[in-house]
Amino acid sequence: MSEYLFNKVTIIGLGLIGSSIARALRTYNVATKIIAADISPEVTNTVKSLKIADAAMTDIRQSVAGSDLVIISVPVGAYGDVAQAIAPALKNGAIITDVGGVKQSVVETLQKYLPDTATFVPGHPIAGTEFSGPESGFDTLFIGRWSILTPLPHTSLRAVEAVTKMWEAFGAKVEIMGPEHHDLVLAITSHLPHLIAYTIVGTAEDLADDLKSEVIQFSASGFRDFTRIASSDPAMWRDIFLHNKDAVLEILGRFNEDLSALQRAVRKGDGNYMQNVFARTRKIRKSIIDAGQADYPEKKS
Amino acid sequence: MSEYLFNKVTIIGLGLIGSSIARALRTYNVATKIIAADISPEVTNTVKSLKIADAAMTDIRQSVAGSDLVIISVPVGAYGDVAQAIAPALKNGAIITDVGGVKQSVVETLQKYLPDTATFVPGHPIAGTEFSGPESGFDTLFIGRWSILTPLPHTSLRAVEAVTKMWEAFGAKVEIMGPEHHDLVLAITSHLPHLIAYTIVGTAEDLADDLKSEVIQFSASGFRDFTRIASSDPAMWRDIFLHNKDAVLEILGRFNEDLSALQRAVRKGDGNYMQNVFARTRKIRKSIIDAGQADYPEKKS
Repeated sequence: MSEYLFNKVTIIGLGLIGSSIARALRTYNVATKIIAADISPEVTNTVKSLKIADAAMTDIRQSVAGSDLVIISVPVGAYGDVAQAIAPALKNGAIITDVGGVKQSVVETLQKYLPDTATFVPGHPIAGTEFSGPESGFDTLFIGRWSILTPLPHTSLRAVEAVTKMWEAFGAKVEIMGPEHHDLVLAITSHLPHLIAYTIVGTAEDLADDLKSEVIQFSASGFRDFTRIASSDPAMWRDIFLHNKDAVLEILGRFNEDLSALQRAVRKGDGNYMQNVFARTRKIRKSIIDAGQADYPEKKS
Repeated sequence: MSEYLFNKVTIIGLGLIGSSIARALRTYNVATKIIAADISPEVTNTVKSLKIADAAMTDIRQSVAGSDLVIISVPVGAYGDVAQAIAPALKNGAIITDVGGVKQSVVETLQKYLPDTATFVPGHPIAGTEFSGPESGFDTLFIGRWSILTPLPHTSLRAVEAVTKMWEAFGAKVEIMGPEHHDLVLAITSHLPHLIAYTIVGTAEDLADDLKSEVIQFSASGFRDFTRIASSDPAMWRDIFLHNKDAVLEILGRFNEDLSALQRAVRKGDGNYMQNVFARTRKIRKSIIDAGQADYPEKKS
């Protein structure tokens, strides 16, 4: 037995998360051999010059040959293509995992294409920055962060344990929940905030040029935080909203009701209503600080 | 002539901003004597134990006697009371300035009560953190930040220059604009983002307890940034929305239109529309970084 958790590991999609995983696999001695695969030759060339994998290739099918673990880290809209490409080439007993921000649709897609000889352990690390691409990754991205796994009732426990050990080796904490529940929780904590941030920054984008330049110049806390959130990868977020439609629309409906009530309070000058809402929300912040989740966005160390 | 810009300076309201000003006045040798006034004995006692002023008192009227500069840093809803209290006690030729987040209503209120022998220079430093109270202030809060002054056409140039020099001594950059224009720009960069953040965190607060605890546990970038914004001082923000109603409702109307369009795109699965919006907003972030306004919230140094 090797001291490594896995022998050969393939990462498909070398963006911020995929390239951070490549770096962490090496730093924390999780894999003996790391294969990087991406349909973009520009990305594989960057990976080669960064030297964060033992090999980098654009042939997705070929990349998984002989791998014990395959990590899919492409936008969730591309999962169908990836699954069809790799299915015939997977080693018997291979474990497949992913890092997608939605889980129900991902489980459906992969179940459709992957062979019974492979085990899929759906995963989602709650970590990231607003930067994209292989050059943005870093090996400490997952330290102290949660990684949620959403295995199905029949998923092999051995496979779930192996993926859990990988995340723990990266410094992450692992939590298990159902895919549907994951999608609802993330709709609130991540998907709706991104939709709102994209909207408000878009509203500013539409302003007349002179006003827009002042908005940029005097960008206060509030707006400038929203611009950071709204600079996340467009294709990734498009796919998340396409694949978590129901939960996002449900939460967005509640948000719209609450915003209308606050808008009415502003119009009517109802200071008591406002102050009650504003005082209540402070408590949630305190709970997040107490839960150790309040740090500012992860930065390269 | 003293090497100091002002002899005696009174600060009314010793919250985050007022107490940061007190500290900065001393650190950067701007005033020979610093008087702190707050209607809360708890606050004045904290100020005394922090030793950030030469005197601290709850008698607002008495606090301005003999002062060359009076800085009002209370929630804007309290300006009428403060102005009425200090008007009879102001020294001839005193300069009054403030730090309120709205300017039109502030100008109207102070013009009504202040004597002609005093000059009011309305001001607003674009700086802050989500923390409140005199213990949260620090002397480097204003370094590299903008401070907007909104003098009227008849405001004495000498007074505007004196207040400008104070902000520059604190390391801030000063910009002059009209009060109405200030209120529109800030409605976009600060007031609407706060209204939205308060709403979304309030929506989460209303969730069933078990779901709420998971939202806190897995609080991702996005939501946790919103909770920081939504933990700002409730009374201060209530007053801002009460006093900048028209600009806030105007910008909120535009935001609601844009959100409806994005909501429709999610419902219809219109990925092209989403990706276009998401790609466009990245440019604004780049402009803010280029303008040097992208730093994370100021922290104590």
